[in-house]
Amino acid sequence: MSRVTIAPEEDRLSAQLAFAVEIDKLKRIIRRNLLMDGSRRENDAEHSWYAATLAMVLGEHAPPGTDIQHVTAMLLVHDLVEIDAGDTFIYDAVAVAAQAAAERAAADRIFALLPADQAVRLRELWDEFEARETQEARFAKAIDRFAPILANHHTEGGTWPLFKVTAAQVKEKVQIIEDGSPSLGAYARELVELSVARGHLSE
Amino acid sequence: MSRVTIAPEEDRLSAQLAFAVEIDKLKRIIRRNLLMDGSRRENDAEHSWYAATLAMVLGEHAPPGTDIQHVTAMLLVHDLVEIDAGDTFIYDAVAVAAQAAAERAAADRIFALLPADQAVRLRELWDEFEARETQEARFAKAIDRFAPILANHHTEGGTWPLFKVTAAQVKEKVQIIEDGSPSLGAYARELVELSVARGHLSE
Repeated sequence: MSRVTIAPEEDRLSAQLAFAVEIDKLKRIIRRNLLMDGSRRENDAEHSWYAATLAMVLGEHAPPGTDIQHVTAMLLVHDLVEIDAGDTFIYDAVAVAAQAAAERAAADRIFALLPADQAVRLRELWDEFEARETQEARFAKAIDRFAPILANHHTEGGTWPLFKVTAAQVKEKVQIIEDGSPSLGAYARELVELSVARGHLSE
Repeated sequence: MSRVTIAPEEDRLSAQLAFAVEIDKLKRIIRRNLLMDGSRRENDAEHSWYAATLAMVLGEHAPPGTDIQHVTAMLLVHDLVEIDAGDTFIYDAVAVAAQAAAERAAADRIFALLPADQAVRLRELWDEFEARETQEARFAKAIDRFAPILANHHTEGGTWPLFKVTAAQVKEKVQIIEDGSPSLGAYARELVELSVARGHLSE
C-alpha cells in the first residue's frame, strides 16, 4: 500500500491494514481434508470461518462457563502462523515436531505487523490456543479437530485412505475433542466407528 | 448423516450438525472480487472469515461502545443465505432488488435447520445485519464493503474494469462504510481516489 497519502495520525490504521493485506494469504494455504462434497481440498481461511461458526453453534457442548466469544476469536486467528509455516498433516509425527519452531517464528513476524498493543493481544490468543490450558482453548481445539472428522465422515473417509490413516490414529485425536467437550468427543467416536464399519477407515 | 446411531437425547446435536453440514456449501459460493494476489475469485466462506477477523482488528474505528464480538458473530453468518440465493454483484441494481426475497426465503430454510432457539438467534443476527439500524450492524456492513475495496485496490482495480464499474458507483458504497465508521470511510475514499489516479477505476 502506498504510504504517500497517509497522514501521520493514520499510522495505526496503516499498520492494521498491512496486517489485513498479509493475512489474505491464509486463503491460499491448503489443508489435507476435503470440502463436504469432496470437490476439492479446503483452505485455512475457510476452515477458520467454519471452525469459528461451529464454535458459536456448538457452544452448549462446552463445559459450563466457557466464554464462547473468546473461543471464536481464538479460532479466527489460530491458523495465521501457517501463512509462513504451512499446513502440517496432523498424522505426520516428524513434521508436527519440526513445525513448532516454525510456527513460533511465524507468530513473531505476522502479529508484529499490528500496532504493539494488538500484536500482544492476538499473540496471546494464539499462545492460549496452542497451550490448551484454559477451557476456552481446549474447546477451540476440540472444534478444530472435530471439523475434519465430520468432513471425512461425509466424504467416504476423505483423505484418510489416501494418506493411510488408521482408526487408532484418529482415535488419538478424538481424545483431544473429549478433553474440550465430552459430548462432541463421544459423537466423534461414534463417527469414527461408523467410518470403520463402512470400510472408509482401516482398523 | 445417518441417524441410526443417534439416541433421542442427541437430537439437538443432530440438528446442529445437519446445519454444520449444510453451511459447508458456503465455501462453494464464488464472489466477484479477487484474492489480494489476483490469483482467483474469493468464496463466501473465506470472505466471511476475513470480514470477521478484520472487524476484530479494526474495532477501534467503530463508534465508542460498539460491541465488536457481536459484530464478529454477525459477520460469521451474514452470507449464509447466499447458499441458496447466490452472490449478487452489488453494482447490478436489478439483481440486488430481486435478491431480497430470495435471501429471505434462504434464511427461512437454512436457519430452521438448527434447534428452534438457535434458529431464532441466528436469524435475528442476520436480520439485524440486513436492517443496518444498530451501530453493530452498520459497522459490520462497513467492514463487509471495505474488504473488497481493499482487495480491488491491491489488484490494480481487480474486477472493477472487468465489470465496467465507475468511481461514482464505488463512492456510493463508500457512503455505507462512512455510516459505520467515519475513519474507515475516509480511508476508503482515499483508496478510491488513488485507484482513479492510477487508472484502475474510471471516473
